[in-house]
Amino acid sequence: MKKVSQRFSIKLLADEIVKGQVAALSKAITLAESQKLADQKKADTLLTQLLPHTGRSVRIGITGSPGVGKSTFIDVWGKYITSLGKKVAVLAVDPSSEKTKGSILGDKTRMAALAKDPLAFIRPSATRQTLGGVAENTREAILLCEAAGYEVIIVETVGVGQSETAVRNMVDFFLLLQLAGGGDELQGIKKGIMEMADGVVITKADGENEKKAKQAQAAFQHALHLFQLPESGWKPSVLTVSAAQGKGLAEVWQMVSSFQAHTVQNQSFEKNRQQQKIRWFHERVESALRKKIFESKKMIAKIKAAERKIAEGKLMPSAAAKEILNSQ
Amino acid sequence: MKKVSQRFSIKLLADEIVKGQVAALSKAITLAESQKLADQKKADTLLTQLLPHTGRSVRIGITGSPGVGKSTFIDVWGKYITSLGKKVAVLAVDPSSEKTKGSILGDKTRMAALAKDPLAFIRPSATRQTLGGVAENTREAILLCEAAGYEVIIVETVGVGQSETAVRNMVDFFLLLQLAGGGDELQGIKKGIMEMADGVVITKADGENEKKAKQAQAAFQHALHLFQLPESGWKPSVLTVSAAQGKGLAEVWQMVSSFQAHTVQNQSFEKNRQQQKIRWFHERVESALRKKIFESKKMIAKIKAAERKIAEGKLMPSAAAKEILNSQ
Repeated sequence: MKKVSQRFSIKLLADEIVKGQVAALSKAITLAESQKLADQKKADTLLTQLLPHTGRSVRIGITGSPGVGKSTFIDVWGKYITSLGKKVAVLAVDPSSEKTKGSILGDKTRMAALAKDPLAFIRPSATRQTLGGVAENTREAILLCEAAGYEVIIVETVGVGQSETAVRNMVDFFLLLQLAGGGDELQGIKKGIMEMADGVVITKADGENEKKAKQAQAAFQHALHLFQLPESGWKPSVLTVSAAQGKGLAEVWQMVSSFQAHTVQNQSFEKNRQQQKIRWFHERVESALRKKIFESKKMIAKIKAAERKIAEGKLMPSAAAKEILNSQ
Repeated sequence: MKKVSQRFSIKLLADEIVKGQVAALSKAITLAESQKLADQKKADTLLTQLLPHTGRSVRIGITGSPGVGKSTFIDVWGKYITSLGKKVAVLAVDPSSEKTKGSILGDKTRMAALAKDPLAFIRPSATRQTLGGVAENTREAILLCEAAGYEVIIVETVGVGQSETAVRNMVDFFLLLQLAGGGDELQGIKKGIMEMADGVVITKADGENEKKAKQAQAAFQHALHLFQLPESGWKPSVLTVSAAQGKGLAEVWQMVSSFQAHTVQNQSFEKNRQQQKIRWFHERVESALRKKIFESKKMIAKIKAAERKIAEGKLMPSAAAKEILNSQ
């Protein structure tokens, strides 16, 4: 009997989500984030049921160093998007959130205006997880938000470790926020980030900063020429925004819309999504296989011992791998 | 009895390699490249025996687009290095060599001077293999060359697909060769390559080209400022070379020597090598696990069917992964 009632409750939850009920959506994301096997099974059943309702959104990844004004930008830009009558969901990928607790997460007050907007949904990321876990949950949260009718999904990352790549692999459009610096505007760009960007926004382009922002815009636009065009043929552009003065918000939305029109037309939009789904599948298979070896209690000591010998030059990596696989 | 004689012959081969006998070295690399299980076992035994004789070289990766003059540079620069009394080995990583047969590989005449030099060893890469296979073999070939007393190992790549990253992960110093272009010198740099470089050499810096080469040098030097310093704290620099006039060769060698002095002193040289070895070990374990699933006849049809359903939006990647793992 329990099984029947559980199936029923998941069906009910799915219905509520499709109706756009926020409490049901929150509950479902919590289920997807749970480490409990029983919850994960429920989440899988739920997501499978909701699959036909997913996919109809534009997924936007946003990254930028601390201090660039990410929260403020998302708050103000999100309000601009809801003013167009569109529902916006904001998710965060922050594997380091245990350390930086409160700085970017669990804190709806940092997007105070958007948090009060009935067309917006803000969900802080679950903490105490590896990047893999956080990324996994975020992918599932994206689908759940889509099923609940959110048309614009913003995935925010602080860019710790490999989180930018993880986010890049789950969104349609990747936006880099950047400050106009003092001397060399291009200093300090993290390796590889600029190459992943479909667009760059120079923030805080107001008052004394405005001229510097325009210079930075030109410098970034030039720097983007260093890189080959992505497969989609989309040319990344650089815009300036003042969140304080509400300037440039429409242009950023226009950029995303142009990107979408361009990539839907040449079919790279759908192609990218399919590739992302297949990659997600492969990653799931591979991570499960890896876990079986690298996280099994039985194996950890053996692996550590092998690594020590390898580092000391006493054991060939190939021979060590064979030993490990045979002792499984 | 067969086992004893085999062990003996491997011991003999190892002795010959340590004495620097080229025929033995060639034979050993062929063994390491073989797809036969029996040969691979022999190669493992051999490498394990030779391990104490490996590691005493500087490993240099060289990349650059076709037409940049890679062969000519390696030929002339290699001769410069042997003129210092150092033994040089040249290996190539070219997963695409089946298609471009003869253009970069199997062709000692493209490094005609170096090929005749008794202090040099040139080994074309085995063809008909995946990048993973080629990279694996090259790692083993590096160790074998070191055991044979080669002090400078040059690993050349044409930069097809991910081969640059594979080479970067097996060398100490990564050198990018680049032509001075017409207008924008920085056009056409492949994504991410410049960020991996410890040094850039502008080739063909002679005659009419010399001025352009100097301009390109300045442009590249500026572009390298875009990126954060690597962990080693080494600042990549940009040099110009004329292979035709033999100009700039000493400076490139000086750059590599400075790099080595700098990184040995701050211990990043050894740290990088240890990390590379551990990564090699992990990659071996993971690729064996992946093969078991993604290349098993039993699984391929199931995986393809799952991918189709996922792409069509009929199956959750997570659910598909579970199915695949359970049906193993």
